[in-house]
Amino acid sequence: MIGKILTLTTFGESHGPAMGGVMDGVPAGVDIDLEALQRFVDRRRTGQSACSSTRDERDRVEVLSGIWQGKTLGTPIGFIVRNTDARSGDYEDIARCYRPNHADYTWQAKYGIRDPRGGGRASARETVARVVAGGIAMQVLDKLGIIIESAIKQVGPCVVETAADVEPLAAEAARCGDTLGGVVACTVKGVPAGLGEPVYGKLHAQLASAMMSIPSVHGFDYGDGFDMAAKRGSEVMDVFEKREDGTIGTRSNHSGGIQGGISNGEDITMRIAFKPVPTLMRPVPTVDREGNPVTLQPRGRHDACVLPRVLPIVESMAALVILDNYLIKKTNVL
Amino acid sequence: MIGKILTLTTFGESHGPAMGGVMDGVPAGVDIDLEALQRFVDRRRTGQSACSSTRDERDRVEVLSGIWQGKTLGTPIGFIVRNTDARSGDYEDIARCYRPNHADYTWQAKYGIRDPRGGGRASARETVARVVAGGIAMQVLDKLGIIIESAIKQVGPCVVETAADVEPLAAEAARCGDTLGGVVACTVKGVPAGLGEPVYGKLHAQLASAMMSIPSVHGFDYGDGFDMAAKRGSEVMDVFEKREDGTIGTRSNHSGGIQGGISNGEDITMRIAFKPVPTLMRPVPTVDREGNPVTLQPRGRHDACVLPRVLPIVESMAALVILDNYLIKKTNVL
Amino acid sequence: MIGKILTLTTFGESHGPAMGGVMDGVPAGVDIDLEALQRFVDRRRTGQSACSSTRDERDRVEVLSGIWQGKTLGTPIGFIVRNTDARSGDYEDIARCYRPNHADYTWQAKYGIRDPRGGGRASARETVARVVAGGIAMQVLDKLGIIIESAIKQVGPCVVETAADVEPLAAEAARCGDTLGGVVACTVKGVPAGLGEPVYGKLHAQLASAMMSIPSVHGFDYGDGFDMAAKRGSEVMDVFEKREDGTIGTRSNHSGGIQGGISNGEDITMRIAFKPVPTLMRPVPTVDREGNPVTLQPRGRHDACVLPRVLPIVESMAALVILDNYLIKKTNVL
Amino acid sequence: MIGKILTLTTFGESHGPAMGGVMDGVPAGVDIDLEALQRFVDRRRTGQSACSSTRDERDRVEVLSGIWQGKTLGTPIGFIVRNTDARSGDYEDIARCYRPNHADYTWQAKYGIRDPRGGGRASARETVARVVAGGIAMQVLDKLGIIIESAIKQVGPCVVETAADVEPLAAEAARCGDTLGGVVACTVKGVPAGLGEPVYGKLHAQLASAMMSIPSVHGFDYGDGFDMAAKRGSEVMDVFEKREDGTIGTRSNHSGGIQGGISNGEDITMRIAFKPVPTLMRPVPTVDREGNPVTLQPRGRHDACVLPRVLPIVESMAALVILDNYLIKKTNVL
Repeated sequence: MIGKILTLTTFGESHGPAMGGVMDGVPAGVDIDLEALQRFVDRRRTGQSACSSTRDERDRVEVLSGIWQGKTLGTPIGFIVRNTDARSGDYEDIARCYRPNHADYTWQAKYGIRDPRGGGRASARETVARVVAGGIAMQVLDKLGIIIESAIKQVGPCVVETAADVEPLAAEAARCGDTLGGVVACTVKGVPAGLGEPVYGKLHAQLASAMMSIPSVHGFDYGDGFDMAAKRGSEVMDVFEKREDGTIGTRSNHSGGIQGGISNGEDITMRIAFKPVPTLMRPVPTVDREGNPVTLQPRGRHDACVLPRVLPIVESMAALVILDNYLIKKTNVL
Repeated sequence: MIGKILTLTTFGESHGPAMGGVMDGVPAGVDIDLEALQRFVDRRRTGQSACSSTRDERDRVEVLSGIWQGKTLGTPIGFIVRNTDARSGDYEDIARCYRPNHADYTWQAKYGIRDPRGGGRASARETVARVVAGGIAMQVLDKLGIIIESAIKQVGPCVVETAADVEPLAAEAARCGDTLGGVVACTVKGVPAGLGEPVYGKLHAQLASAMMSIPSVHGFDYGDGFDMAAKRGSEVMDVFEKREDGTIGTRSNHSGGIQGGISNGEDITMRIAFKPVPTLMRPVPTVDREGNPVTLQPRGRHDACVLPRVLPIVESMAALVILDNYLIKKTNVL
Repeated sequence: MIGKILTLTTFGESHGPAMGGVMDGVPAGVDIDLEALQRFVDRRRTGQSACSSTRDERDRVEVLSGIWQGKTLGTPIGFIVRNTDARSGDYEDIARCYRPNHADYTWQAKYGIRDPRGGGRASARETVARVVAGGIAMQVLDKLGIIIESAIKQVGPCVVETAADVEPLAAEAARCGDTLGGVVACTVKGVPAGLGEPVYGKLHAQLASAMMSIPSVHGFDYGDGFDMAAKRGSEVMDVFEKREDGTIGTRSNHSGGIQGGISNGEDITMRIAFKPVPTLMRPVPTVDREGNPVTLQPRGRHDACVLPRVLPIVESMAALVILDNYLIKKTNVL
Repeated sequence: MIGKILTLTTFGESHGPAMGGVMDGVPAGVDIDLEALQRFVDRRRTGQSACSSTRDERDRVEVLSGIWQGKTLGTPIGFIVRNTDARSGDYEDIARCYRPNHADYTWQAKYGIRDPRGGGRASARETVARVVAGGIAMQVLDKLGIIIESAIKQVGPCVVETAADVEPLAAEAARCGDTLGGVVACTVKGVPAGLGEPVYGKLHAQLASAMMSIPSVHGFDYGDGFDMAAKRGSEVMDVFEKREDGTIGTRSNHSGGIQGGISNGEDITMRIAFKPVPTLMRPVPTVDREGNPVTLQPRGRHDACVLPRVLPIVESMAALVILDNYLIKKTNVL
């Protein structure tokens, strides 16, 4: 589960009957556009490329509760997304071996059992439930004037300017059977000052935890982040000023919209680092469960770079955190 | 509060009577050496420099419950550390103005009230309670053969090789009334495979959240971290092998001891980026509560670089997370 | 959500597409018999009467995740039960009026909106999800030798000896368009000593909360309960003795298997009081949303007494609490 | 810990240095009268009897954080109450034996270790921390017009009309070295409609859990409670009416101010059953840790009936639950 007042609980193995979740604590009486929600979920499936899915390739969202006549009821929003490619034949080697940089070995260590079909619950397919919930949270935030955006900033070692830059880089890596990671930037605009808990639940700690829970994420920073460590105090000072509308703001935003763990009203900025896709399209050495060396042969078709698909996931996790903290803020005064 | 089975709740304003906390869920019957605990807490006060505090400058830990005759009882461990420098005269300007890169403005926005004395609860003094709890957790982990280490890797833009490198860099910044941040590395050795929750409570997500809750932290990564985003899948593959003792491990450790959010038995490695100390020793422009421009004059004496002092805090947060997950692991099978 | 390590989150409105839930923290590798689970869920639908449901009247449980090849995976067990009688026509008066002793008025006050179809989420249909989860928990407990039983002890003012006694009493009340409540007893056998948290999470406090969360419950006690308040200390003393097998136990069990909030190894005994069914089969005076007096006419067919159906619900709530505490107990020592 | 937004964490063994707690989530900017708080805490020590403690016998409350210049800061309120009678000599027999109806045996089973001095954390002394927190919560509720009252209704088998009735009954039991329990009623007035979570966190389930966490409590009901089980639906119907001020209310209050788990604006009424004090002032048979029969001799002085002292504890637990739910209610709509 993630969240405190607004919570999300999810379930589902990649090749089981369905993925799904329960989103609790969504305020009552908010209009939700289920068509728009479906379109948001579709973004995760297709990435940003133009040549994308037709209707019947969709991950169709079935909302089972909590929304009635287009409005939230305040009750838990239960939903499922059926899995359609429940192949069961081709996971013998995953069941027997530990793929490098995957979770096979660690799940076995934790549970003593694992569902090897398509990676089971360790599959990135798990994120579809996050995007359903995140899409709902974003619609609620939208009513509050809070907007979340994300963009790919780096693919492998290359700085990326537009989404179109990604495909040739990925194609080149794929030609060698190799894969790429990268860096995504996310910005939240319109957040009022005062959100976040000041000690253990600092707003950036919650965001870090949420982003780090996305498969393949290996790093998180906000504001000037790691670069800030290299600068002097005088270089990163966000000096306050009175603005024309009478409000107080900062001239710069090295702090990334958060000071002392609480939002200050400026844009919240953060970066999320993804490791390269662990599944290579070339033979890979590993061991089986007894430790004997084996070679895994490439199978099926895998993306060489998943960054275009992660954007709605990143936005979803940001939305869940921000909305939860927006609600908690209401309890800080009588 | 932080943690699930092993939890820590803390309290205290910088210039109030005391800081303190309650640590719940510590297993019963474990020997705790309170003298060693005091020495660990002292590390936070003095940093690594030689010319450090004499006995009576200590943050004296008073354990009020949960430990009896040198053993944990399984009951909540309550403790306090008295504040001794409860000056009350010199915070007029903090009460009236918003210091840049501090939490004055955001606390005011959140609560409509704040204790300006020494920064109140937003002061880094808050971390003393974490170190008490972390020190206890480290003693418990020690019985399990789990060891936590940390080191300063970067101060401002400079790579640091030894602790002795820090002081001249800090002194140079201090001469200009300026301050430095830096990067700390933390390693956890001896962690068994299988710790961590696989989806929202990934072990690195919990570590990120814990580290991000330390004042001034702006970035976190683990394993090869942000560098991993720039590499190809084939370059960061941690290939499994059977070791001489018959166990399975990986030849390299780009993954930082965690795969799919669960420990794999290798060393857990992470980096934590600290922003420069926000309090400069030079006049600083800002606004008062009405938005009028004012200049804050430097006061008192502040460190130009706090990295030597943060090491026990970083280790403490790691210890709390690892021990909590060690206990939770026990519930994964009947 | 209910529980700490073993948690249950549920969703669903009575006349929405489905009820469902997510059960997290079930230990991995435990055999689950889904046919037996279905039969347990069927008990809730049909009560104890002989003339009960045929196959196609079933609340069919669809397990969507967390169980594979008949074994728990340690991952969240997601499940749904479709609603089949999603009539939408006949709830106009519920939408407009507040039925006495129902939750119409209070839900409106809390959320400003409610789903009036069949009571929405306030319907007792919600309990189907608890029984699915409880049935799974009971199968796990069974492996541990922990058995949960329940029985009707009182229907209206009458002491009940056998289940067959209930029907004539209910029929008599129904003839006047009236309804009955009653008292259920629940016993948990085979619980090891040492389960329960000693202060706020006392085992009986958790059981009370769990039972009180069942619709219509108005009272809970354990051991000699309310009767114990009328007795002297010397009358309710459970004297310890050494048994033939060398273990220590108590000669009597006034304490109901719990002392100081922790199980002592004796049978855990408790009583749960249910108010009469609030829906009468006679005209009922009330007000509409503007406060105007109106008379609600009886509709459909409602049970005059639901006690036979609540037994599996009571057992389910007990099972969830006991299993959660069984798992937490593992963390009390290193 | 108890609570969700407003939480209380406590610590302390009876004969350790201090009892204490941390209350988090109290809204910021609320005036707290610390003198009044001390008087409330004193009620727990002295009960209602006239011949009560002089000033210097007080449990003196030390607030260590979270309140500044008479106002809450929104930060955690840490507090301690020193233990003064930390005798250490006379607990040999408790350490060696299991007192009947006490928690000695069950704590040993749970933790494998226990502090026998005065019952350690299992002592009712633990409740002093609840009363400090409850007293603060009651002051906050008072600003909202919410008032909590409690009264003794039954002592042993006798109905009690005034507090003065208790002493002769207790004295008579004490003459035989015996003890009494009883029943306390608690009423919360002025609660707005709409508080409580509708499924697992029903308001009465939270109240039951809170009351059941008080030492010696064996039963809880609300509204007509167990008596309701014996009545017909038509007898307990709380018919709605429009009142002169235009609001909607109920003519009767069999439901005890809660319908479907949510407050309806009427008085919340509940009863709490206490078992007789377990410590008799006569020789008591039991076993030692090896199971050998032993006789415990009476020691010190113990109350024959503690009901007068439990009233502020009952009120405190009610206050914590109601305030928490008041705050959570704010998050139900945008």
